[in-house]
Amino acid sequence: MKNLNIGILGLGTVGTGVFRLVNQNEALLSRRLGQALRIKKIADIDIKSDRGIPIPENLLTTDAYQVIDDPDIDIIIETIGGDTVAKTFILDAMANGKHVVTANKALLAKHGKMIIQQASENNVELGFEASVGGCMPIIKTIRESLVGNTILGFKGILNGTCNYILSQITHERVSYEAALAEAQQKGYAEADPSLDVNGDDTAHKLAIISSLSYGKQVKLDDIYTEGITQITALDIQFAHQFGYCIKLLAITKMTEKAVDIRVHPAMIPYSHMLSNVNGSYNALSIIGDAVDEMVLYGHGAGMMPTASAIVSDIADIARNIQVSAPNRISTLANAARNTQPINVLPITEINCRFYFRFTAIDSPGVLSKIAGVLGKYDISIDCVHQKGRKSREGVPIVMLTHQAKEADVRAAFSEIQALDVVWEAPVLIRIED
Amino acid sequence: MKNLNIGILGLGTVGTGVFRLVNQNEALLSRRLGQALRIKKIADIDIKSDRGIPIPENLLTTDAYQVIDDPDIDIIIETIGGDTVAKTFILDAMANGKHVVTANKALLAKHGKMIIQQASENNVELGFEASVGGCMPIIKTIRESLVGNTILGFKGILNGTCNYILSQITHERVSYEAALAEAQQKGYAEADPSLDVNGDDTAHKLAIISSLSYGKQVKLDDIYTEGITQITALDIQFAHQFGYCIKLLAITKMTEKAVDIRVHPAMIPYSHMLSNVNGSYNALSIIGDAVDEMVLYGHGAGMMPTASAIVSDIADIARNIQVSAPNRISTLANAARNTQPINVLPITEINCRFYFRFTAIDSPGVLSKIAGVLGKYDISIDCVHQKGRKSREGVPIVMLTHQAKEADVRAAFSEIQALDVVWEAPVLIRIED
Repeated sequence: MKNLNIGILGLGTVGTGVFRLVNQNEALLSRRLGQALRIKKIADIDIKSDRGIPIPENLLTTDAYQVIDDPDIDIIIETIGGDTVAKTFILDAMANGKHVVTANKALLAKHGKMIIQQASENNVELGFEASVGGCMPIIKTIRESLVGNTILGFKGILNGTCNYILSQITHERVSYEAALAEAQQKGYAEADPSLDVNGDDTAHKLAIISSLSYGKQVKLDDIYTEGITQITALDIQFAHQFGYCIKLLAITKMTEKAVDIRVHPAMIPYSHMLSNVNGSYNALSIIGDAVDEMVLYGHGAGMMPTASAIVSDIADIARNIQVSAPNRISTLANAARNTQPINVLPITEINCRFYFRFTAIDSPGVLSKIAGVLGKYDISIDCVHQKGRKSREGVPIVMLTHQAKEADVRAAFSEIQALDVVWEAPVLIRIED
Repeated sequence: MKNLNIGILGLGTVGTGVFRLVNQNEALLSRRLGQALRIKKIADIDIKSDRGIPIPENLLTTDAYQVIDDPDIDIIIETIGGDTVAKTFILDAMANGKHVVTANKALLAKHGKMIIQQASENNVELGFEASVGGCMPIIKTIRESLVGNTILGFKGILNGTCNYILSQITHERVSYEAALAEAQQKGYAEADPSLDVNGDDTAHKLAIISSLSYGKQVKLDDIYTEGITQITALDIQFAHQFGYCIKLLAITKMTEKAVDIRVHPAMIPYSHMLSNVNGSYNALSIIGDAVDEMVLYGHGAGMMPTASAIVSDIADIARNIQVSAPNRISTLANAARNTQPINVLPITEINCRFYFRFTAIDSPGVLSKIAGVLGKYDISIDCVHQKGRKSREGVPIVMLTHQAKEADVRAAFSEIQALDVVWEAPVLIRIED
């Protein structure tokens, strides 16, 4: 049985997970693949720290090029992250004829086009299942299982940190700050959580799957992105009273003239599958013209789930090597070399239902003033909550609207904010039914 | 661009769906696959009825062998169903060197071993993604995405008819009979719904995915199977009060000495993803050693969702033909030619929590008598409901137990049923937390 030699760049959580999984299920993998997977070399700047699993010293090096330039290595796993050295290493590995598997969403979202081109020029494969949704087979499902479908859109919870924080505020009634601190303590959030809580990580993932699904280049800058830092326990409680929970969603829908693509907190009804996605779990709802709605759910991050996705890419490449068919499915299977940027619908053009919370003085005419401005902009109110919660900071007036246009909502908000009865900047949360 | 020629056997709902999808997304499929898919011949005993879509007359034949023996046809789609002619046609097609794609779970569950052997002997592929879970990529996920995982078990809602009926009883508070009649009217249930409501269809699907996952032959007769015909609105309401819904589940778990594998109605907590699977939707929760829990959700049946799964199999085979690598992944990828029957845990050996409903006379000593028998068999009670609902038929005593052994429960039930204070056969529903 031929060995397939693997090199790993980056021995953090995910890199260690790949080492652990390939060793733990070695016999099973050999049987399933008809060839043995052997981790030949691992590079990391720190080869001294304990990874909680014995790793033979002779596998370790601090020099990435001992992996990249090793002629015996067939596949290189990049688990460094970020878009600086990781990019150089991947491009050099491909130039050396190595297949590459990566979990690096930031890199792919920013430089995917260049990396895919490098893979194509060197006739090597690029595996990136682990870059979106951890263990969930999102990339494989889009490229292979839904091959017969026109993809019409997605709705996804793609960041475990944000979902953990929002779940804790919802179910444990803690503050945003307390939930974030807890997430950091449990290792779900980085010391600097901004990439997660600002929605950028979710936007990276959305850029990857929408490019793949629509067969056109989706630029990161074109994705309207709003994080969860403004979400309060108060809004989560009001949402709950209306039968909704609040999740950070990646949303995209194909419309006739352009693609609606955005990342922001949204209210989803408790009857929808995504409302039951709690803690650090992720889920993606995919709409295809034949399948209607399909949902994938699983751990979107973590050592072993991410390693599982990486190993599935290794297995695909191993099977292709075995039958001498690298790139049996081209990286952008759905794109047909069409890397034109996609036409994006401006956020002001979207139509949806909205949740508003105004903080106003507690006097009889206030609601009528606010409603008057909304009416002027054709924003029709579905229901209003005005009871209780009186405080020095004013009384909250909460409402859900019928379908309205974001541009109209923004215009109305400017006028409402200028009213002398309204005290704070109004809160707006989009509703996804 | 080379054409890939497809023949269809059986022009019912699914066969028509395949024709429709291949034509509807023709350009997209050609682009993605790098070759054109062309439906060359379709056989059905009825070629006169309107299928709601124009089908060129010259494609149609009543003679299946005009498809099976056509030297130009590369792939044959079997959408006849059942295990009589479908079996013969598939075996003959394979003998002729045709790759076969089928949605026929009954056939695979009963004669899978023979069919897989025939495929292997003729070096042709057998695609069966559509046989379990409609559009959901269950087979691909098990064989490819979870290739690095030891599969530890499943929990699934795999029959849309049963799920529709249970959802209607739960949410619309109708009777079992009314829900079934409605399912039949809407086309979700057959005129003879027994294969669905008895749990047999679910058992067929469980046999297929567990054989594939464990790499051993799971015999249909070894799967303990209980349907939904005994489920009453009363039990569904009680379950709801305890925070559970009732679903027909396919369940399997690997234990040290044997596999626990069964189909029966079960109570699942509202906090679990599967509790939100309503109507004719299906879902499968898969437990793998690396991924922990992963869930797939989607339409488990229906014209276009099933066609989508069939087209994904066609695409896989087309890609393998293109690179001259038929059976790039062998049918039983995980099995390593090991088709030994698996060791099955008898239902009496399982341990779980239980829901009991006794119908007894309304007198003070009754609960103590019942609890006495349960105590004797080491069955410990978690909580009891005894209030209200007095009627001529006696008062219902409802309880949830802690973990107990099924054999003990059965023994206790024999004794309780013999008590003169208990009027009807007690009801037992297993709880899956």
